[in-house]
Amino acid sequence: MMSQFGLLPGRAWAALLSPLLRSPYTLCTSAVRSHSQGTRDLSPQQMVIREKILDKVVSCFKRHGAKGLDTPAFELKEMLTEKYGEESGLIYDLKDQGGELLSLRYDLTVPFARYLAMNKVKKMKRYHVGKVWRRESPTILQGRYREFCQCDFDIAGHFDPMIPDAECLKIMCEILSGLQLGDFLIKVNDRRIVDGIFAACGVPESKFRTICSSIDKLDKMSWEHVRLEMVTEKSLAPDVADRIGDYVQLHGGLSLLDQLFQDPRLTQNKQVLEGLGDLKLLFEYLTLFGISEKISFDLSLARGLDYYTGVIYEAVLLQSPDQAAEKPLSLGTVAAGGRYDDLVGMFDPKGHKVPCVGLSIGVERIFSIVEQRMKAFGETVRTTETQVFVATPQKNFLQERLKLIAELWDAGIKAELLYKNNPKLLTQLHYCEDMGIPLMVIIGEQEMKDGVITLRSVASRKEVAIKRQYLVAEIQKQLSDS
Amino acid sequence: MMSQFGLLPGRAWAALLSPLLRSPYTLCTSAVRSHSQGTRDLSPQQMVIREKILDKVVSCFKRHGAKGLDTPAFELKEMLTEKYGEESGLIYDLKDQGGELLSLRYDLTVPFARYLAMNKVKKMKRYHVGKVWRRESPTILQGRYREFCQCDFDIAGHFDPMIPDAECLKIMCEILSGLQLGDFLIKVNDRRIVDGIFAACGVPESKFRTICSSIDKLDKMSWEHVRLEMVTEKSLAPDVADRIGDYVQLHGGLSLLDQLFQDPRLTQNKQVLEGLGDLKLLFEYLTLFGISEKISFDLSLARGLDYYTGVIYEAVLLQSPDQAAEKPLSLGTVAAGGRYDDLVGMFDPKGHKVPCVGLSIGVERIFSIVEQRMKAFGETVRTTETQVFVATPQKNFLQERLKLIAELWDAGIKAELLYKNNPKLLTQLHYCEDMGIPLMVIIGEQEMKDGVITLRSVASRKEVAIKRQYLVAEIQKQLSDS
Repeated sequence: MMSQFGLLPGRAWAALLSPLLRSPYTLCTSAVRSHSQGTRDLSPQQMVIREKILDKVVSCFKRHGAKGLDTPAFELKEMLTEKYGEESGLIYDLKDQGGELLSLRYDLTVPFARYLAMNKVKKMKRYHVGKVWRRESPTILQGRYREFCQCDFDIAGHFDPMIPDAECLKIMCEILSGLQLGDFLIKVNDRRIVDGIFAACGVPESKFRTICSSIDKLDKMSWEHVRLEMVTEKSLAPDVADRIGDYVQLHGGLSLLDQLFQDPRLTQNKQVLEGLGDLKLLFEYLTLFGISEKISFDLSLARGLDYYTGVIYEAVLLQSPDQAAEKPLSLGTVAAGGRYDDLVGMFDPKGHKVPCVGLSIGVERIFSIVEQRMKAFGETVRTTETQVFVATPQKNFLQERLKLIAELWDAGIKAELLYKNNPKLLTQLHYCEDMGIPLMVIIGEQEMKDGVITLRSVASRKEVAIKRQYLVAEIQKQLSDS
Repeated sequence: MMSQFGLLPGRAWAALLSPLLRSPYTLCTSAVRSHSQGTRDLSPQQMVIREKILDKVVSCFKRHGAKGLDTPAFELKEMLTEKYGEESGLIYDLKDQGGELLSLRYDLTVPFARYLAMNKVKKMKRYHVGKVWRRESPTILQGRYREFCQCDFDIAGHFDPMIPDAECLKIMCEILSGLQLGDFLIKVNDRRIVDGIFAACGVPESKFRTICSSIDKLDKMSWEHVRLEMVTEKSLAPDVADRIGDYVQLHGGLSLLDQLFQDPRLTQNKQVLEGLGDLKLLFEYLTLFGISEKISFDLSLARGLDYYTGVIYEAVLLQSPDQAAEKPLSLGTVAAGGRYDDLVGMFDPKGHKVPCVGLSIGVERIFSIVEQRMKAFGETVRTTETQVFVATPQKNFLQERLKLIAELWDAGIKAELLYKNNPKLLTQLHYCEDMGIPLMVIIGEQEMKDGVITLRSVASRKEVAIKRQYLVAEIQKQLSDS
């Protein structure tokens, strides 16, 4: 009954993903639309899947020594301004009801940086699982929710270069492998290289961030569309755009790094040299971690958010080779992150910096994938953990049932009964079968007379009579055996 | 090191509570106040305490067969209006940014009722742990937060009377006993009896709910203050107020129930008779559950929220007898709930009702109590779960440390190292001691030459040399032994 995620090979479910990724709203069904657009309730079945996935993610974070942290759902509005660049328009503001101006958090990174600055914390490895809210416009909305869960891991502090960064990539690999979602690839780049390319191509510095936002769309749009946006909407000179195009379509490994080290247009820029040097060191550490074959140095990766300052990365699921026509096709981003060394300083009155690097697991997409896969393969999960059902074949046994079930609860046994004075035995049997409850305790006139209780295995239908005083011990034995 | 909650007797910590209950904000310290009033970050230490308490609460909910459910943080504003009575003014609205009018959820009960109606669910036992938001005014704010966690359990469906209601009270007892917070009492009343008393005393029906809100304050204010509020602010006739006063100061057990059955002013009211009959049945079931001595029938209990229709209850912690002057003194409400049979119908287009009964655990107050107690007794908790630290006594061993730690992570072992190329051995030892990490793996020149790794117990300082290939197995053995 109970499904284990990821037991199926990647190719078996990859076919299911295309329609899903186009419109996950098909998962959200309701007769009357009576909640806010872009949000949804999670059913008990969805909650079980979600909890199992979150457990795996959090276990990995704890395996790497992270502490938990929680921050409020809303922040002072001023805390969130000028942190997200073009995406700031998506921030939900609270109504001014007399008092402070507040906004719902847009991610977990900015609140983390605010926490570090406010408490003068200079060093911390923390994880945070929580909801964030983004006011995506209805047209963009398809494929996204306005409320969604983020799972973040970040390392703050002054350390030797690239060691925490490499650990972040290791964590992404461990989580994605552990969830058995199929093959994946992590694209890596560096904000200093991105900016260096912009400078070398002739982008005015004032347009760095907005052009960065355009480049960030290359995973969803063709180069031609991105180029058009840069030239028409962002007034970039066409020849500058073309020069950018020559770079951002490059990707590879160490050899591409070496190639860029030879590019005179780039290497006259100190920031680019630092970025290339750090990436080289990063690749060395990733090799020691045994994950370098999962990593691609990809110049099309830009990351839309303003706050990144160094290495950036994004993990994508790949369609398996037998399904892809020529090259592996991306099935969408499932994890991302990067280095943001200046963000904490923006919250500190004296501007003291605390360098940070971190990652965010795109659990909503992972939930959808697992859910869709289970649906397609007809897998179900139990939504309760009840171990024992207390039943009676006779009328007027409510008092005995209540006394008995209280005994089980007090012994820590997960138990249920029907809230009826005189339920039918068949109804009680069906309830056990429907809910997957393994054991049934039956009390009736015969049992009362004999001073026993009947213990029935729902699956095998085997029944044994057990003296009342040994019932709890026998149940605990049967449950630990199974 | 690791503390177990509740190992101290009630009287040992009850003395600590008075200052705490007056101003829990003393727990919230920050140099720069840069987040919203009435909200707070939760530190890693607080998160550990919180997780342990939530684990116990959720375990109990699962022991009673509840399914999980999640709803969005915000609802359509119209969904929340006319559900909370006088408390509606505390609802946080979102700014109108073009689109729907939204409000942050005020509790988990109304979204649950909305979920049931929207999905036409006729029967469900669910739990929900989530944050809710209330815009308490700064003067009321002392002792409360504007963002806080609720843990709710509810049973929806048409069942025989008082069986689910009794289970709710059983759950409250199990959780409060399990958390070992000291002695507690659950006050029980019925909204039909409250209203019947109002009618019998001459309160106009239009004032039932507002007078109910006043009575609800009896746990925080004296009768004289409540009487004054009813007479001056709510224009109730003084003699009517006095008649109410005669009733609401009564509390007791079955004998008080019998006394009211004899009261001709009350028993001419059919609703009151039903309420009294239900409470009598409830007490019978509570006796079968073995918890009747924890329950008090208390006519001062009114519950402020509009949506209750039947039995209502509230659990309070009691000061231990040797500390109280005359009668046990309440240390505040830690759990509450009741029956709300009409709420689901308010969301159904055809008004179809689904009777519900439920409870909410006041975990914020419980967190504060446990936290304050641990502070007073100097108890600390580990904020990470790291099992092994990878160290070196020599320079230039980063590569070996990285290879080694990846091996441990891949084997599922919780491991850390310092993010330094050449950390000092003493720094590494101190880190283990500070963080309570039990094992240390040491790799240096000698180990490399001998093909071994040194495994050190941090507490006993005992070191053993282990062949590299047996390291993971040996660590797993030591961890499972300890």
